Amino acid sequence: MSNKQNAIILSSGGLDSTTVMAMAKQQGFTLYSLSFFYGQRHRFELIAAEKIARAMGVIKHLVLDVDLRPIGGSALTDDIAVPKEQPVKPKKNDIPITYVPARNTIFLSYALAWAEVLSVSDIFIGVNAVDYSGYPDCRPEFIAAFEAMANLATKAAVSGNMTFTIHTPLLSLSKAEIITQGTALGIDYAMTHSCYDPSPQGLACGACDSCCLRKQGFMDAKLPDPTHYVTESKP
Amino acid sequence: MSNKQNAIILSSGGLDSTTVMAMAKQQGFTLYSLSFFYGQRHRFELIAAEKIARAMGVIKHLVLDVDLRPIGGSALTDDIAVPKEQPVKPKKNDIPITYVPARNTIFLSYALAWAEVLSVSDIFIGVNAVDYSGYPDCRPEFIAAFEAMANLATKAAVSGNMTFTIHTPLLSLSKAEIITQGTALGIDYAMTHSCYDPSPQGLACGACDSCCLRKQGFMDAKLPDPTHYVTESKP
Repeated sequence: MSNKQNAIILSSGGLDSTTVMAMAKQQGFTLYSLSFFYGQRHRFELIAAEKIARAMGVIKHLVLDVDLRPIGGSALTDDIAVPKEQPVKPKKNDIPITYVPARNTIFLSYALAWAEVLSVSDIFIGVNAVDYSGYPDCRPEFIAAFEAMANLATKAAVSGNMTFTIHTPLLSLSKAEIITQGTALGIDYAMTHSCYDPSPQGLACGACDSCCLRKQGFMDAKLPDPTHYVTESKP
Repeated sequence: MSNKQNAIILSSGGLDSTTVMAMAKQQGFTLYSLSFFYGQRHRFELIAAEKIARAMGVIKHLVLDVDLRPIGGSALTDDIAVPKEQPVKPKKNDIPITYVPARNTIFLSYALAWAEVLSVSDIFIGVNAVDYSGYPDCRPEFIAAFEAMANLATKAAVSGNMTFTIHTPLLSLSKAEIITQGTALGIDYAMTHSCYDPSPQGLACGACDSCCLRKQGFMDAKLPDPTHYVTESKP
């Protein structure tokens, strides 16, 4: 029953998930991509995700409307200012205000639902536990627990003819390594959007956590940064 | 940090989740209830959920719009007829068409997000593994795996000051036992809505899986069935 050559990629329109998509394609998977409007501050990342889906030859790109604003609890969905020029690597147990409660759990749950409907057993997500913002749902122990749960949650689990795998090819890569590998796979990172707090025209602020990690990544990779920033200031 | 006297109850407006709510209240929890419009065929169960929240003295009743229709795969969200007068207990490994892929995973994920924001560690869900429709995400092994995952997914898990518990007080009760216990707790089951395919006026069809289980439950419990059915036919 399982269609092993197909894969669902969680696509945020950002640098990490786009690299994951290129990696899955390189491994021979036929791509389905899944993005969410969850009440984030802007839609530029969704515009980027659609552009990326076309560029990558995705079979079907699905955008789900899953408004997380009534739940709140994050600078990305509430009316709380996104912190700027903060230390990128938080201290241990220090979770930034840009953390969205249970976001990856919710996103992976939808991916699981779609995977079950499509009979796809492979789900890719661009979580990373090296150059990341300290979110709990980006850690390998969370991913392993989600995979175990997924294999008990569905019809496929009961009939026994399918096993879900959550692929996390970026898990132990630095941002510079991600950029280096993605560039080698031919990704044009100018397509991707990472900024939490872009200008009304969609230019990256250059100062939020996500911009700082991205800038530093290109510098460490010694590759030109194609991102369009609001100012030309360098970190 | 954890607020142990508060609890989130997943409320479908049906018989089971209403009984769970009464049980949580009886145990001394202050109630928060969570319902979903997920693209189901009608809104009568949401109207019931709101009425029940008021009757039970719920502090906050949240209804989230999480349209599952683009994912499809179920008679409850697709344009597929709901089966009538089917055998209620399916054969082993036989999952009915009313199964919604990964629905409880998605619903519990939202409950987890809200629980994290509210600092609530107790989540109640009315899953039942006796008189049920054979859905994989109603089984105890699924619930245990979700709970393990939840305790790795969130900020609370990293800081270590909170442990989530998924309560399933109906898990090993028959429908008749659920009705008997709920009646003893003073529930007026006329408020609740179980039917998958009600009339335009909201009357229960009396013939879908959910109606058949409910009817049989009242008969086995030897209690009067207050449900308003389209016809007066008895099973």
